[in-house]
Amino acid sequence: MRVFGIDCGTEFTGYGVVEVDDSARNQRLRSLCAGAVRLNRKDCAAARLAMVYAELTALLEAWQPEVVAIEEVFFAANAKTALKLGQVRGVAMLAAANCGLPVAEYAPLSIKSAVVGYGLAAKEQVQFMVARLLELDVAPEPADAADALAIAICHIHHAQTAEALRR
Amino acid sequence: MRVFGIDCGTEFTGYGVVEVDDSARNQRLRSLCAGAVRLNRKDCAAARLAMVYAELTALLEAWQPEVVAIEEVFFAANAKTALKLGQVRGVAMLAAANCGLPVAEYAPLSIKSAVVGYGLAAKEQVQFMVARLLELDVAPEPADAADALAIAICHIHHAQTAEALRR
Repeated sequence: MRVFGIDCGTEFTGYGVVEVDDSARNQRLRSLCAGAVRLNRKDCAAARLAMVYAELTALLEAWQPEVVAIEEVFFAANAKTALKLGQVRGVAMLAAANCGLPVAEYAPLSIKSAVVGYGLAAKEQVQFMVARLLELDVAPEPADAADALAIAICHIHHAQTAEALRR
Repeated sequence: MRVFGIDCGTEFTGYGVVEVDDSARNQRLRSLCAGAVRLNRKDCAAARLAMVYAELTALLEAWQPEVVAIEEVFFAANAKTALKLGQVRGVAMLAAANCGLPVAEYAPLSIKSAVVGYGLAAKEQVQFMVARLLELDVAPEPADAADALAIAICHIHHAQTAEALRR
């Protein structure tokens, strides 16, 4: 299974691809790529959204995942921030849909629980555990890339649990 | 000048095309089309966003406007609503950008002032005045379509004022 995680943000939108060989006995997680789309503050909103859409579409076409995992958002500092974040999130979900991929959404609590084992873990703990689970020497940078990998790992754990329950 | 107005919503997204012949002495406004994309609540969020994007893109390609006008949003009932509205708005702005069209944003107060002459006008007053300004026998339905026409009219008024000031 190959999962493309996206961590939407108004400045950086992180992404990360995680793969697991479902047929192997030792189901090691492997990170294939991780990074972030950096938005230029000088660009107008429409140009920024077009850039996120184009970059994510190119990455989805290059990495051919089976599913896209994205963080659910329930609250924000204020309505203006929520609206701006929603714009990026809408474009990210559209990129997945237009590539014919299903979108799975996970609450922040589920993501942290899946990676750190504690829903209220700090950002640094998430970065540290993502690096350990993926056997990386250093934590992925920026933190948004690590968060995107965490979202992908969360999806794999959920899928594996669902699969185990079916057996 | 031909303007494509969009009124984003989580259930209905209104659209309307307004044209004005800038060279004519009597600058009559003409409505070319108006309607709304209705989202199916049963569809998942990504599918709904893909539908809005596809329908708006098809309309923009069919009507070939010079500019897209959209409402600015500053507040919402809560962050969850703002996030959902933002998702639709992001996809609408992306449709414009991917058609190579500039996006102009107007505050609700400006739109109502442009159409009714009063920034805090009621929804019915906007519908009534949109019908009068565009010489329509009946107010466009649903209200979201009338709102989209109002946004397009607001852009035309702003552009005409800017042009008059340049002379």
